[in-house]
Amino acid sequence: MKELQERILADGQVIGNNILKVDAFLNHQIDPRFILRLGEELANRFQGQGVTKILTVEASGIAVAMAVGLYLGVPVVFAKKKQALTQEGDVYAAPVFSYTRKEHLEISVARCFLDSADVVLIIDDFLAHGEALAGMISLVAQAGGKLAGAGIVIEKKFQKGGDAIRATGVRVESLAAIERMSPGEVIFE
Amino acid sequence: MKELQERILADGQVIGNNILKVDAFLNHQIDPRFILRLGEELANRFQGQGVTKILTVEASGIAVAMAVGLYLGVPVVFAKKKQALTQEGDVYAAPVFSYTRKEHLEISVARCFLDSADVVLIIDDFLAHGEALAGMISLVAQAGGKLAGAGIVIEKKFQKGGDAIRATGVRVESLAAIERMSPGEVIFE
Repeated sequence: MKELQERILADGQVIGNNILKVDAFLNHQIDPRFILRLGEELANRFQGQGVTKILTVEASGIAVAMAVGLYLGVPVVFAKKKQALTQEGDVYAAPVFSYTRKEHLEISVARCFLDSADVVLIIDDFLAHGEALAGMISLVAQAGGKLAGAGIVIEKKFQKGGDAIRATGVRVESLAAIERMSPGEVIFE
Repeated sequence: MKELQERILADGQVIGNNILKVDAFLNHQIDPRFILRLGEELANRFQGQGVTKILTVEASGIAVAMAVGLYLGVPVVFAKKKQALTQEGDVYAAPVFSYTRKEHLEISVARCFLDSADVVLIIDDFLAHGEALAGMISLVAQAGGKLAGAGIVIEKKFQKGGDAIRATGVRVESLAAIERMSPGEVIFE
């Protein structure tokens, strides 16, 4: 998506060779109308697939997932990163290692919000090593739901998580795919 | 807001006398088109106040804040609950005690996303003891910004945080204000 690539080049900041900071429009400050266009584009790619539910994980995925949900007219469920006291025991859960936070998390979804009748589209802001995506795919599998695929805003191809997951037969669409990057330089696929 | 009250009565679940679980449409699963209407109503209440930025805190506030930002045409900044490695040191920070999680958190916003030229509207899903709202008000004050007020989806009046903050001169608008509740019963103001 050309508008996204331009925005990454204008407002993104590469730290080392692995971290792309897009806090100006996606991960800390969000530009709601731009996020809406990202959501529209992702919704278009999965139109007609019978999607009944969007699944994302808190926190940065929520705005994009909400935009996709608006266009597809389906509910959005966001997996929680740890259990809060208001979340009861009856959950699907999967371990996820966060390279950004350098910590082991558990993501979970209450069983009542995912079931075997669901056709699930997973939405996330970033795809790098694929840890969060693999965790969400596990949640859908535990529920016995059908997976329509995954829609990602920015994929860091060189961290190979996306291709590993594609190799298992999952359809993964990303709006911007980064081949390589270094401070001051971002090369798209 | 009548539609919200009806939704709380239909889908909310009261645990003890303090916890209202609205995971079906706000805190875990979200109904994007309904959230959009909540955002429109909150935006209407602060129309013409010169708002330049929405401030919320991850994670449940994000969807509503995005909806308000869409209607007001301004960026949304979500405060982070702990520092991730991609967040650098230059932040405004405030301590917040979470009654839901029973833990002390620090919320923070990068200095580059809030400044003294900003007129800030704070948006959050819940207002109970007022801890999160007081923390966000502190972030705006640290930045030297002007506060337009706070727009809340559900206020639990009996936990008194909202009135304590109103007493300091801050305009606080809530779409549903709960006077008291118990399992199976929710009484609105």
